[in-house]
Amino acid sequence: MRRIDLKEVEDIALGASLLGAGGGGDPYYGKLMAIGAIKECGPVELIGPEEVPDDAVIMPIAMMGAPTVLCEKGTGGNEYRVIYDMVSQYLGKKVYAVMPMEAGGVNSMLPIAAAARLGLPMVDCDGMGRAFPELQMVTFTIGGVNATPMALTDEKGNSVIFNTITNKWTEELARAVTMSCGGSVTVALYIMDGRTMKAYGVKNIVSRSEMLGRAIRNVKNQPDLTPQEAFLKASEGYGLFRGKIVDVLRETNGAFNLGRILLEGIGDFRGKKAEVTFQNENLSVTVDGRICATVPDLICLVDTETFTPVTTEALKYGKRVMVTGLKCYDMWRTQAGLELVGPRYFGLDTDYIPLEERVKGGGSDV
Amino acid sequence: MRRIDLKEVEDIALGASLLGAGGGGDPYYGKLMAIGAIKECGPVELIGPEEVPDDAVIMPIAMMGAPTVLCEKGTGGNEYRVIYDMVSQYLGKKVYAVMPMEAGGVNSMLPIAAAARLGLPMVDCDGMGRAFPELQMVTFTIGGVNATPMALTDEKGNSVIFNTITNKWTEELARAVTMSCGGSVTVALYIMDGRTMKAYGVKNIVSRSEMLGRAIRNVKNQPDLTPQEAFLKASEGYGLFRGKIVDVLRETNGAFNLGRILLEGIGDFRGKKAEVTFQNENLSVTVDGRICATVPDLICLVDTETFTPVTTEALKYGKRVMVTGLKCYDMWRTQAGLELVGPRYFGLDTDYIPLEERVKGGGSDV
Repeated sequence: MRRIDLKEVEDIALGASLLGAGGGGDPYYGKLMAIGAIKECGPVELIGPEEVPDDAVIMPIAMMGAPTVLCEKGTGGNEYRVIYDMVSQYLGKKVYAVMPMEAGGVNSMLPIAAAARLGLPMVDCDGMGRAFPELQMVTFTIGGVNATPMALTDEKGNSVIFNTITNKWTEELARAVTMSCGGSVTVALYIMDGRTMKAYGVKNIVSRSEMLGRAIRNVKNQPDLTPQEAFLKASEGYGLFRGKIVDVLRETNGAFNLGRILLEGIGDFRGKKAEVTFQNENLSVTVDGRICATVPDLICLVDTETFTPVTTEALKYGKRVMVTGLKCYDMWRTQAGLELVGPRYFGLDTDYIPLEERVKGGGSDV
Repeated sequence: MRRIDLKEVEDIALGASLLGAGGGGDPYYGKLMAIGAIKECGPVELIGPEEVPDDAVIMPIAMMGAPTVLCEKGTGGNEYRVIYDMVSQYLGKKVYAVMPMEAGGVNSMLPIAAAARLGLPMVDCDGMGRAFPELQMVTFTIGGVNATPMALTDEKGNSVIFNTITNKWTEELARAVTMSCGGSVTVALYIMDGRTMKAYGVKNIVSRSEMLGRAIRNVKNQPDLTPQEAFLKASEGYGLFRGKIVDVLRETNGAFNLGRILLEGIGDFRGKKAEVTFQNENLSVTVDGRICATVPDLICLVDTETFTPVTTEALKYGKRVMVTGLKCYDMWRTQAGLELVGPRYFGLDTDYIPLEERVKGGGSDV
């Protein structure tokens, strides 16, 4: 058990924007909410997964909808209490702790705000180890855990509990309510006991996020390492391409931001071209026609000078970025994992080949 | 307490199609469901409102969505059990009885099916005394009762509980889920205690429905009365116009069927013209430019020979109908009632004048 205070929030938010793999929403607004909650209610206790009793009720907290809407519409501040009351009443049992379901992007921050406001600890664990666009894309789905009972509340005080036959139906129904509530809501989903959390969760991901954030902040202060070396070492990342953004094609399809980014190489990559595709999060990167990485591995664009992550919202012509590959959580590499979040699920016509094998082989033909 | 068996179901269904005031959906399909449930599980106990203890939990049952979709999509049979379990778990208390929320149309029948399948009694009471198109249009809204907690389930087994800040928000969110579930679902709403039901409900409306159905079936067997006299006497109705349908204009706007019916007089009404407007239910009737009746009074079209009600779905060129006015429940005539369901709410540019006064004065100018 240790404390998350304002300084830790800054580091976790920075690391979470890297784990967002381009998507998940810029944690900035979420960070303001976490900071506001800690300033009002005091710091949050972060507890290790193993500290949680097997029968304790864990309530993962997230926002559902468009992060861009969240930034404009805001939150009411009372959502966590409303959702806590509804879940406790439904279960007839007290919630022991909150946790993030998505460590990447803005959803890394809301559980911190919730924990502070509810006076509950937060578990150092999530269900993705990154960001993903759909509700059923969590390790707990592989474990057969239901997303429901799921609670949803808006900033006006409306709240809803869903009990669905599949996690795809949860996505469908909760998405409809989210739209009616204005496009961004707070949810508690995959409410589970401690045993389940320990069996399927991505453990210590909040600590990893914090470490990544701290490392990015300190890339220029590492003796014997260039900033790029320091960044790749700390993140255990693969530098797949360095280039200048020369085009960004965007399309909004239903609830998703789709698109592709075209890059022209700089430095060692001069004369080469790369393409990154995304659906909220980055899906694939191809260099001169050879795929270098695909989902579920993390494809992250970072600024070539500061190594701060560049989300899809912040893509701009002329920006110089390094395309970095990070290995995804092992469970995503199993057959069950790839059925949920593999390249074919996202419409890419390629099998999944682990990042490190693609790098070794110099990529594969498209 | 008395029994509702197959014979009673037939009469209630026929009476309910009159109380539907043109809308509420043809009770035919609901009748099949009620009959199926009674054949499988035995007859239903109908209990008087006064027989219900003050603290007993009453669960009103209805379908939400388009009755035309219900007829095609059907139901799964297990909805009542799913909704019962969800409500009981949420309240932490057993449900004592079901009741209809809308005595007109198809929603008159589903609580009978629910009562039979759950082995619970049904209370002889509803919240409308007729049919209305929106969820907040119930006497309980006047009493300040919340529509929520409201439970919703589809035929696949998905279920949802809503807790909203206003009954208009319930309508908004539940409508969105209803659409996602395919356009027709089963709901339990305005779940309340016996005390509230007795204070605001429209009492003995199921018995009235049954009496109306029986009367329609027997209009030709009344000594000293013509069938029309027998019908008007039993229903305490006002014969406002008799005519032939010469045009039907329909428009589907969002979730509603809007339109107008043009009639040319027959018999005593030869040479006159009438117009009936509707939004699911009939809203107003105008004869030669003078309004004869408006919502919330019931405007019902019945066949001139059989006196069976004609719903808006069954309107046909050349059909001969009598336009009949029935007085609405007193509570609808209060200021609070008229704010919810008065003519202006439905976009009619007239104040509400009670049916019997309009008839006495020969209608009012449009």
